[in-house]
Amino acid sequence: MKKPLSGTIPDIAANQKRATAWFRELRDQICAEFEALEDVLIGTQRDQPPGRFERKAWTREGGGGGEMSLMRGRVFEKVGVNISTVHGEFSEALRREVPGAEKDPRFWASGISLVAHMQSPLVPAVHMNTRMIVLGSPHVGTPEERSDDLAGGRARSVSGGSVLPTIKHWFGGGTDLTPMFPNNADTEDFHAALKGCCDRFSPEYYTKYKKWCDEYFYLKHRDEPRGVGGIFYDYLDSGEPEKDFFFTRAVGETFLSIYPELVRRHMNEPWSNTEREQQLIKRGRYVEFNLLYDRGTRFGLQTGGNTEAILMSLPPEVKWP
Amino acid sequence: MKKPLSGTIPDIAANQKRATAWFRELRDQICAEFEALEDVLIGTQRDQPPGRFERKAWTREGGGGGEMSLMRGRVFEKVGVNISTVHGEFSEALRREVPGAEKDPRFWASGISLVAHMQSPLVPAVHMNTRMIVLGSPHVGTPEERSDDLAGGRARSVSGGSVLPTIKHWFGGGTDLTPMFPNNADTEDFHAALKGCCDRFSPEYYTKYKKWCDEYFYLKHRDEPRGVGGIFYDYLDSGEPEKDFFFTRAVGETFLSIYPELVRRHMNEPWSNTEREQQLIKRGRYVEFNLLYDRGTRFGLQTGGNTEAILMSLPPEVKWP
Repeated sequence: MKKPLSGTIPDIAANQKRATAWFRELRDQICAEFEALEDVLIGTQRDQPPGRFERKAWTREGGGGGEMSLMRGRVFEKVGVNISTVHGEFSEALRREVPGAEKDPRFWASGISLVAHMQSPLVPAVHMNTRMIVLGSPHVGTPEERSDDLAGGRARSVSGGSVLPTIKHWFGGGTDLTPMFPNNADTEDFHAALKGCCDRFSPEYYTKYKKWCDEYFYLKHRDEPRGVGGIFYDYLDSGEPEKDFFFTRAVGETFLSIYPELVRRHMNEPWSNTEREQQLIKRGRYVEFNLLYDRGTRFGLQTGGNTEAILMSLPPEVKWP
Repeated sequence: MKKPLSGTIPDIAANQKRATAWFRELRDQICAEFEALEDVLIGTQRDQPPGRFERKAWTREGGGGGEMSLMRGRVFEKVGVNISTVHGEFSEALRREVPGAEKDPRFWASGISLVAHMQSPLVPAVHMNTRMIVLGSPHVGTPEERSDDLAGGRARSVSGGSVLPTIKHWFGGGTDLTPMFPNNADTEDFHAALKGCCDRFSPEYYTKYKKWCDEYFYLKHRDEPRGVGGIFYDYLDSGEPEKDFFFTRAVGETFLSIYPELVRRHMNEPWSNTEREQQLIKRGRYVEFNLLYDRGTRFGLQTGGNTEAILMSLPPEVKWP
């Protein structure tokens, strides 16, 4: 069936299916790539066994669930790659915070979230997260149930009638790099890859999303940025749902092309105890950001998300001397 | 001059003077006592030199300032004892949060705040904090300037006239114990000391403030308490300002009588690496509480407080394995 108009309910349902499947596929690709990096270490810690991801599924009481993948390796000191697809109703407090949620508190959200803390202080830490959100969804359930229900463009309203409900949906996400000792080549290559990705979709995306990233990942209480930036986007609904999905997909593919390259570049370089100490202190800033400011962390903890999955982003070892 | 009525402006001004002086005196007593504990260590780490406090004064851009005292010792791995006396105007956001601040955003606050993280996993971590708050203060400046201005019960209004402004004031604070391996004797002695302190002022205080502490120091996202509790009180304005000051003073004195006793009890016991690891993990919960929930931390960071002083509460070394 050809879609009659972009942004209709069938479009959204198609994106829900595609996005959910893509987040899982990306997770598998990332885990395979990171395990491959574990295998080729010849620097410090090469006498340790290469790390492997451990996987753990969870279900959410209000609806849906997810899967955590955690690896404690010899290159990746601690890396969590989480996927989840959840649905339910926003709490009173969140209804006021999320644009559009006042009218109808129902939501559906699917995403992938990754944070990597590295053994070597010379390898940057990284964060990547993309997600699709649907507000006021007419039917909650598995993606399969949803798309069956929505395929014909008909949907049950809250009261059980047959009127079309108001639906808002968008994509969001991004990736940002946190080196302990920034160097121009890494920063430039990371940003060049992201710019290349953005430019394929809109000449405005990179400038806009780089700025958003710089503003978002900023520790106000220390008046310092979290790292060297990247891109951050949210509420992306261009009117072309398929394009928005492909942009989100491209962000994941770009991450997968550039970050392992930066790891390979530095993972075999020797480091000093002083550099390690500075890494542990810099990680404290990461903790401060995540617990004081990060919307994903706060959103997750407030919507009864899985605490273990949400706080998997916290570094394995930290110092506030 | 005899006070005509309790709770008048001269009463409040007298309390501001007394409280400010007391917080400084208590700081000196605590630092001396903690340094004395550093001197008498005969257990693990006795080959390290005994720690000594380092002091650092700071001024607040909006008015007032404080003094940090930080010791990195062989018994106290990291302990911060901060005093501050600040004044200014609440931000828009805080006006809605603080009862009574909507009408008049001016505030004055003085307090002492202490967090101790210990070398030994067998010695409990501890927090103690007491403070006096005045809202809608008719004159901001040094305590001396304030009391000169207020001594006669006359005060300038915001608009420069001579009407008496509405003033709210209260005391708040408390202390709570966070052992890594709780044991009944320590918990009972800590609570017995606090109960004894409370009972001298009101038969209701202990039950009420213990409950408040249990509710406040609770990690909702983990469904677990921060430690074994203590007391927590806020907005204390019994109508007898002098009594409220003496209660706050007694809380500090009680802390000083019981906590060093608990340190002495365990500081010389040997500990294992496994116990140390558990301590580092338990400290992660402390970080989570302080950054996600603690009102003092959030209040401080939002009112342009001194970040270094506020985050001195964070443990020196932490693990989220």
